[in-house]
Amino acid sequence: MTELRRDPIVGRWVIIATERGKRPSDFAGEAKEPRGKFCSLCPGNEAKTPPEVYALRPAGSPPNTPGWRLRVVKNKFPALIAEENLEQTSAGVFDWMSGVGDHEVIIETPRHDTRFSDLTVEEVAEVIWTYRERMRAMKKDSRFRFVMVFKNHGAAAGASLEHSHSQLVALPVVPKRVLEEMEGARTYYNDHQQCVFCDIIKQERAAGVRIIEERDGVFAVAPFASRFPFETWIIPQHHSSSFEETEGYDGLAHVLLGVLRRMDRVLTDPPYNFIIHTSPFGDSKNEYYHWHLEIMPRLTKVAGFEWGTGFYINPTPPEDASQYLREAAP
Amino acid sequence: MTELRRDPIVGRWVIIATERGKRPSDFAGEAKEPRGKFCSLCPGNEAKTPPEVYALRPAGSPPNTPGWRLRVVKNKFPALIAEENLEQTSAGVFDWMSGVGDHEVIIETPRHDTRFSDLTVEEVAEVIWTYRERMRAMKKDSRFRFVMVFKNHGAAAGASLEHSHSQLVALPVVPKRVLEEMEGARTYYNDHQQCVFCDIIKQERAAGVRIIEERDGVFAVAPFASRFPFETWIIPQHHSSSFEETEGYDGLAHVLLGVLRRMDRVLTDPPYNFIIHTSPFGDSKNEYYHWHLEIMPRLTKVAGFEWGTGFYINPTPPEDASQYLREAAP
Repeated sequence: MTELRRDPIVGRWVIIATERGKRPSDFAGEAKEPRGKFCSLCPGNEAKTPPEVYALRPAGSPPNTPGWRLRVVKNKFPALIAEENLEQTSAGVFDWMSGVGDHEVIIETPRHDTRFSDLTVEEVAEVIWTYRERMRAMKKDSRFRFVMVFKNHGAAAGASLEHSHSQLVALPVVPKRVLEEMEGARTYYNDHQQCVFCDIIKQERAAGVRIIEERDGVFAVAPFASRFPFETWIIPQHHSSSFEETEGYDGLAHVLLGVLRRMDRVLTDPPYNFIIHTSPFGDSKNEYYHWHLEIMPRLTKVAGFEWGTGFYINPTPPEDASQYLREAAP
Repeated sequence: MTELRRDPIVGRWVIIATERGKRPSDFAGEAKEPRGKFCSLCPGNEAKTPPEVYALRPAGSPPNTPGWRLRVVKNKFPALIAEENLEQTSAGVFDWMSGVGDHEVIIETPRHDTRFSDLTVEEVAEVIWTYRERMRAMKKDSRFRFVMVFKNHGAAAGASLEHSHSQLVALPVVPKRVLEEMEGARTYYNDHQQCVFCDIIKQERAAGVRIIEERDGVFAVAPFASRFPFETWIIPQHHSSSFEETEGYDGLAHVLLGVLRRMDRVLTDPPYNFIIHTSPFGDSKNEYYHWHLEIMPRLTKVAGFEWGTGFYINPTPPEDASQYLREAAP
């Protein structure tokens, strides 16, 4: 039997195979890139990246030299460039604008062979505080409306460099998918006078079946309408509309690391993406949206059906996924 | 320099690298599956599939025996099942319904080693007429609101079987992505009293730069806001809102085959998906939507940024893509 499930925020439908769901061992392992090639993100090769815009390094240590624990540089091949002026044009049915924006790479560790999930919780917390720092820096630029913070791990998840890193992209428009999510949350708030994420946390805590772990008021949940096998959302219990306006990330660091280590155990170092979902800059403080982090292991291929419909076929029910992950305590 | 381009139908933004765009040779070839294993779609193995629901075979030849030119069977592992009753339920913030639907596989040729792009134009026309036939059959079931017709070619595009086939999935709801497209087209119509696709064809014919080929009033165009390198839309010039209500497909068969053969030459047998975009059953005849077919070669990996934003990064401008394809006349 299968179920169609509707995401309560965006309204998208997901097909869930509730019986004969796939088990972790059903997913073939991913081929890994060869190690040992030259890496521009390694210490000693600082001159091979654009100059650093931020770093965690010993006091007195000069920029763009070894000794750093974490380093932020502009992307060498940026999707968008900060120097351009924002110009909007149209011709007939078509609209376009110049590609103004910003694109930074956060090198999370000097150690080439260390995955994000191998970092200590203190190191993960430093990465998260750096996300906040760089988002707040980009927020000062009035041309930007939104900053997307994300990590790609593994070639199948789109990581083109092996050395562990995350990315920030500042955008001059609020992306459609973010608008949809905001709009869905706003509609729910207008109907219920409640934040939909606050209500989800309340209902998931009462049910228990889809919660993976909790620490300091931060919950990891397999979402009811998961698009992908082992998709996991990390949501703070306390209502907060903007990631970069939050003052503490201890729970997030622990739970993020905990979930990724559980995935490593259950799925053998799966490729994944994670993405911070937060309010646009122009609407930082609101009652209806609730920042969170979404982790998507990339175990299945998105094919014609998903592209054509926006419907996802998920062969692993979130109730099974959460159980596998709960039982794999690190 | 990069441009942000807005799709005039759905409103999604795309980042286009207008300079230093990637060339076909920049995309690495895809690893192919081994050939020669047992294939349940081959002639002689008819008993290994569910019984056929439709076939093109010589008069008097019994069903589920060899001799067919084309064969349609139910999917052995369906995403949705026709036998279930449609039941909608909710609990707190969550809504779901039973997974009623239908899922068929169209085996396009008896020849295992023949790709879709190796078929004759007559064979492609038979496949297209079969799409129409099966869509019309599913339309008679009042539980269904939409039928998605699509093809996955190559493992990287999600094809799990090597033998050339397409799929039809009947759905009890109109998918979100289809609704968005309908809604975008309706808004444009209300504003302009014109179909947006008719206006696109008019503007593209005047400009010339993004048209790849034309035959019998059917155009292949690299869309202005292409999400993917070498993305191609095939659009009939004459306004028609529903694929399955159309009476002739000669132009479509020629242009579809022509474009796929051009892609084979330029991109060396790329993995791709194609999808028929058409009106939902409840709104078959309308002035604002215009059926078409979208081909998406799968040359780039969709990573965290695309998932988080619905923004796509396309390294090959459609103006370049259309030129490469135009120059590769089969």
